[in-house]
Amino acid sequence: MTSRSVSKTVVKRLPVYLRILDNLIRRDVEIVSSRELSLESGFSAEQIRKDLAYFGAFGTRGTGYNTTFLRDKLLKIIGLDQKTKIIIIGAGHLGTALARYNAVNNPYVDIVAIFDRDRRVIGQKIEQIRVLPFQQAPEIIRRYHIKVALITVPAGSAQQVVDEIIKHGVTAILNFAPAKLHAPEGVHIHNSDLTIDLQSLIYYSTAEEERLLRLQQETEETKSQKMLKLE
Amino acid sequence: MTSRSVSKTVVKRLPVYLRILDNLIRRDVEIVSSRELSLESGFSAEQIRKDLAYFGAFGTRGTGYNTTFLRDKLLKIIGLDQKTKIIIIGAGHLGTALARYNAVNNPYVDIVAIFDRDRRVIGQKIEQIRVLPFQQAPEIIRRYHIKVALITVPAGSAQQVVDEIIKHGVTAILNFAPAKLHAPEGVHIHNSDLTIDLQSLIYYSTAEEERLLRLQQETEETKSQKMLKLE
Repeated sequence: MTSRSVSKTVVKRLPVYLRILDNLIRRDVEIVSSRELSLESGFSAEQIRKDLAYFGAFGTRGTGYNTTFLRDKLLKIIGLDQKTKIIIIGAGHLGTALARYNAVNNPYVDIVAIFDRDRRVIGQKIEQIRVLPFQQAPEIIRRYHIKVALITVPAGSAQQVVDEIIKHGVTAILNFAPAKLHAPEGVHIHNSDLTIDLQSLIYYSTAEEERLLRLQQETEETKSQKMLKLE
Repeated sequence: MTSRSVSKTVVKRLPVYLRILDNLIRRDVEIVSSRELSLESGFSAEQIRKDLAYFGAFGTRGTGYNTTFLRDKLLKIIGLDQKTKIIIIGAGHLGTALARYNAVNNPYVDIVAIFDRDRRVIGQKIEQIRVLPFQQAPEIIRRYHIKVALITVPAGSAQQVVDEIIKHGVTAILNFAPAKLHAPEGVHIHNSDLTIDLQSLIYYSTAEEERLLRLQQETEETKSQKMLKLE
């Protein structure tokens, strides 16, 4: 392990390991081999050994990793050894679903507040979490040192919301708004775009080859009609 | 363009182009350059020209692409030129949010039904879509030739649900259940794991370098205590 930053693909695998370990620990499994981790995760055993060794976690030859030890190590690596305080901006259907899901199923986060601009939802509680007016976000972000925010507002207001919360200290944003957001260096924005996921899936649901062939024919026809020119 | 299958990374970019074009068309923009597409998407202009040329869509030198022509081409490529019939399994908070979101904002899909096992939700309507008992899923899948399903059931029942719907004709699944699912060849499963997205984001929210250095020190200490052996 070095102090250099870790590649994004590795960072994405760590929570997968964490979930598998959580499940094993719940089932009182004390030792897990890299082969078992491979079966559960779909990553190769070699990859797993490499990832974990990089963070200084080594199994015992022929036996494997101590599940609790490895879980605790991963929590520290990811930064989940203390509950992460997060906020959600947007108390619509998706914001509500995310609040409920994480409040019930995610032991590693603490949703401090949900913000919205709609008076009809302000003042409501979602799983004991208050829906506050968005104007209060700066104050809450500063008071609770919030670094992480989930954005589930309409595309049109997402950038404005992001600019505002970054100004007050948020550095990591999980964006569900269907918009490309801009942020200064040092701020991480991860776009979780459910429509785009669905559409790329639809691509695979129909006979891919047949469709591409048909399109190829059309293109040839169009070309011969000289309706298109090369850029 | 060939009839060979298209790489996954290209397929993921296509819906992004589609969204940008949809927005441009709404604003009555008729022509867009690859440079503008690059600014909006974050992909390089070269990449965009390559992607689109692969599908037989060529811009006019010095001007760009006709937005409507390119949009219609992309719809055909992705398979969205006809509304895709989809089902949602699981009428919990997330299933409801996805149903509402897509019913309102996604003109390319038609949610035929939502299925659940909970009698308290069966019979309800979410944006005019009926919540049906899961036992009826096989019949609906066959009757409407459903190929695409969204899964928002608990992790414990996800595999069983997937096995059942695949048997009746579903070939593409967007899985929100926090579980690794297995499917026969030819079936596409895309995992959209909101907890894992959030946790890898949390990794970036705290001072990465500092944490890694601290862990490195701990590892050295542990090593010297000989509590760990190399695998």
